[in-house]
Amino acid sequence: MADRSAQNLFIHNAAQVITPALSTSGPSPALALRVIEDGAVLIIDSKIAALGPTRDLKSDPRVQHVPQLNCTDCVVAPGFVDSHTHLVFAGTRQLEYEKRIQGTSYEEIAASGGGIQETVRQVRRTSEDSLLEAAKQRCREFLDHGTTTLEAKSGYGLDPDNEFKILRVVRRLREDSTLPVEIVSTFLGAHEIPEEFQKDRRGYVNLICSQMIPKVAQENLAEFCDVFCERTVFNLGESRQILLTARQHGLKLKLHADQLTRNGGAQLAVELNAISADHLECIEDRDVEALSHSNVVATLLPGATFHLGKGNYAPARKLIDSGARVALATDFNPGTSPTVNMQMVLSLACSQLHMSPAEAFAAATLGGAMALNRHGDRGSLDPGKAADLAIFDVPDYRLVPYHFGMNHVRAVIKDGQVLFDHWN
Amino acid sequence: MADRSAQNLFIHNAAQVITPALSTSGPSPALALRVIEDGAVLIIDSKIAALGPTRDLKSDPRVQHVPQLNCTDCVVAPGFVDSHTHLVFAGTRQLEYEKRIQGTSYEEIAASGGGIQETVRQVRRTSEDSLLEAAKQRCREFLDHGTTTLEAKSGYGLDPDNEFKILRVVRRLREDSTLPVEIVSTFLGAHEIPEEFQKDRRGYVNLICSQMIPKVAQENLAEFCDVFCERTVFNLGESRQILLTARQHGLKLKLHADQLTRNGGAQLAVELNAISADHLECIEDRDVEALSHSNVVATLLPGATFHLGKGNYAPARKLIDSGARVALATDFNPGTSPTVNMQMVLSLACSQLHMSPAEAFAAATLGGAMALNRHGDRGSLDPGKAADLAIFDVPDYRLVPYHFGMNHVRAVIKDGQVLFDHWN
Repeated sequence: MADRSAQNLFIHNAAQVITPALSTSGPSPALALRVIEDGAVLIIDSKIAALGPTRDLKSDPRVQHVPQLNCTDCVVAPGFVDSHTHLVFAGTRQLEYEKRIQGTSYEEIAASGGGIQETVRQVRRTSEDSLLEAAKQRCREFLDHGTTTLEAKSGYGLDPDNEFKILRVVRRLREDSTLPVEIVSTFLGAHEIPEEFQKDRRGYVNLICSQMIPKVAQENLAEFCDVFCERTVFNLGESRQILLTARQHGLKLKLHADQLTRNGGAQLAVELNAISADHLECIEDRDVEALSHSNVVATLLPGATFHLGKGNYAPARKLIDSGARVALATDFNPGTSPTVNMQMVLSLACSQLHMSPAEAFAAATLGGAMALNRHGDRGSLDPGKAADLAIFDVPDYRLVPYHFGMNHVRAVIKDGQVLFDHWN
Repeated sequence: MADRSAQNLFIHNAAQVITPALSTSGPSPALALRVIEDGAVLIIDSKIAALGPTRDLKSDPRVQHVPQLNCTDCVVAPGFVDSHTHLVFAGTRQLEYEKRIQGTSYEEIAASGGGIQETVRQVRRTSEDSLLEAAKQRCREFLDHGTTTLEAKSGYGLDPDNEFKILRVVRRLREDSTLPVEIVSTFLGAHEIPEEFQKDRRGYVNLICSQMIPKVAQENLAEFCDVFCERTVFNLGESRQILLTARQHGLKLKLHADQLTRNGGAQLAVELNAISADHLECIEDRDVEALSHSNVVATLLPGATFHLGKGNYAPARKLIDSGARVALATDFNPGTSPTVNMQMVLSLACSQLHMSPAEAFAAATLGGAMALNRHGDRGSLDPGKAADLAIFDVPDYRLVPYHFGMNHVRAVIKDGQVLFDHWN
C-alpha cells in the first residue's frame, strides 16, 4: 500500500489531461474520453479535488499551499487499471514460445503436458517467499509502465496448498507498504485440470467446490472467482457449478470465455451476472448481443492473440458499437501474454481491434476499474476519487498507442504520492 | 561519433553471449546464431579481441589489466543494426493514425494529400537546426533501445533545397561527437511525387536524375540511393531510371519493393544487384526464388504491417527456407512505423512472421549490417570487429522477443565505450 499520509499536489501546464466517463447520452451507456487542453489536476488529501484548464485552476485558493508539478508537453491520465493478470508464477516459457513459432499449437502443447501444467510444476516446487520476491519485482515493472491497480489470479497451484500459497502471496503484496500498487485478488483454482486428476475431472471440480472455495471465502483470500471455461478445460456445466458455488460463498464472478473455441462462456457470464467475461476472441453475434444487454464487462486481451500469432482478435468494434462495456487488460502470464505494458495493449487495441485511442484509454482505465468493481474509487480523475495518475512524455494521448512497443511513462502518482518522475 | 580513444573492457559471467554468423554449411548461405552459455567478451582497443566461455577467457593475460563488467543473468549481443529508418522529419501523424483506425486506407490518405505529403509540408517549413535537434533526440532513443548503427533516409523534402537540408542534418549527426551512434546516409528523393510536380512526373524524375543525384554524389551527402517503387508512387520504369543514374554516380542501391502491391520491385532489385530490397509484403513465389539466388538482402519491416493494421506480413519463412539473406529493421517513420524499438520488431518477427528468436536476432544484427554493407566491421562479435554491444536484462535471448512491447536493454557499448549501464 502507498504511504497513507495525506498528499497534496498541483499538476499543471499539461498538454492534455484526459479522463474517461460513462456517457449515457447515446442509446446505451458508453465509455467516452474527456480531453482538457493545457490542463491541470489538483490533489488534496490524496484524492482528486479538481481538474480543468490550468488558467482556471490556478485561481483556486488551495493551489497556493501545495507542491507543484509542471507537466509541459505531457499527457496526464488516470493510472492504468489492469483487470486481468496472472501475476504470481515461477519460470518463463520461452521454449514453448519457440515451439509455437515453429508451428506447434497452444492446444497441442497443453495436451502434451506443457503450457499451464509446466508452470504448475514450477510453482509447486517454489517457496512462498520466492514467489513473493518475483511478484514484487513484476509489480514494480507494472508501476514503471503506468499501471496503478492490477488484478492477480491464482491458478498455477491446482491443489489446496499451492492455490492458497499463491493467494497468500497476493495478500502479502497487498499488505506490503513498500509496494504502492493496488491489487485485487482472484481465485482461479479452475484454471486447468491438474495432472493428478486427469482421470477424475469430477473429483477436481468437487475439491474446488467443497474445500477450496469455502476456505478462500472464509479466510478472505480472494474477492473474485474465475474459471477457464473452454472445451478442453472446464466445460460449460462444470464452469456453472463452480461459479454458482463461488457466488453462494460471496465471491464476485469472472470468466475466461470463448478464447480458443466458442462454447457459450459469454452467455454463461450474462446468465450469472458476472462482473466480467474475459477474452471473447471466438464470440458470435448472438454473444455480442447478449453482452450488450448486460452489465458484464467485456474484457479484451489482445496481447494473448498477438503472442499466440493468431489473427482472430475479439470483435471490439461490434461490442462497442452495440453498447457493451469494454475493458482492456494485459492478461500478463508466462505462456500467452508475457508483457506488463498496458501501452502496448493500447497499440494492439488501436491497430488490430480498430478501437480509437480514446476508446482504448477509457477501456484501459475506467473499463478496467468497472471489471474490478473499483469504478467508485479508481479509473478516472473525477473529484473525490483516489489520485492515481500516469504521466506520459508525449503531448497528445494518441501518441501513446501510436509510438508502439515503447514505454512513455514519465511519472506515476499513487494516492497523491509521486512514486517517480524521470524528469526530476 | 563515439570517443575514439582506445577502450578496453572485459565483459564476463553473462548468462549468454550471442553472435550471428553467416553459415555456409547448408545448401545456401544462411544466418545462424551462436550461443555461448556463461559467456565473456574481451574488448581491446575498442575492438572485439576474443569471446567464449567466461572460464576460458579469464585466463587470457590481457584480462588482468582492463576494466570489468559483470553481466550475471544478462544476455550480451551485438548492438542492433537498423538498416531502414526515415530518421529526419518534423511533426507526428496521429490524426492520420486515428483516421486509418476508423477505416480510411493509407492509399486514400495519400491520395487526399495526407501521408508523406503532410510530413513534406512540415519538413519544408522547419529549419535545419530544428530538424537536427529532433533527430538527435531520436538517436538517443534508438541507443536507449539497443541500436548502435542505423540508416537514415532523406525523402521528406522532395526538392533539391529540402532534400539536401535533410542530408546535411544526417551529416551533422554523423559528425556529432556527443552522439555515439553509427549513421549511414541514404538519398530517397524518390519517396513520393511532390505536389508541385503532380502533373509533371517526368519533370520530377528528371530533376532527381539530372540535379539531385549528381550533387548528392559529388558532395558525398549519401552512400545509398533508394526509391519507393509502387504503382501509385514511382513505377518500375521510373525506378530503374533513377537507380541506374544513382549507380552511375557511385551510389549503392536500395529499393522500397512490393509493399502495397506486387509490381516487380524485388525483381528490379535483383536485376540491378541492389544491396537490399525492403518491405516485400506482396511478393510472390517467383520473387522469393529470384531473391534467394541473389545477394540482395531481403529487408523485412513488420512494424509497418502491424501499425497499418494489415495482416499480410512479408513471407519471411519462405525467404529464409529458400536461402535468401534476411534483415529486420524498424522502418521508423511518422506515418507507418513510429517505433524506435528493434526488440518490438523481433517480437513481430517471431509471433507474426514465424521467425525463430535466433533467426530474428541474426537478421536484426548481421542481417542489418549486410543491408548497409557494414558486415565487415559491424553486426556480430567476431574478433576484429568494432565493439558495439547491447546488454539485455534477461537470462535467455529468447526472452527479448517473448516479453513483447518492452525495453530490456540494461547497457549499451559503442566502440568499446559503455554509454550507459542501468545497473551502475
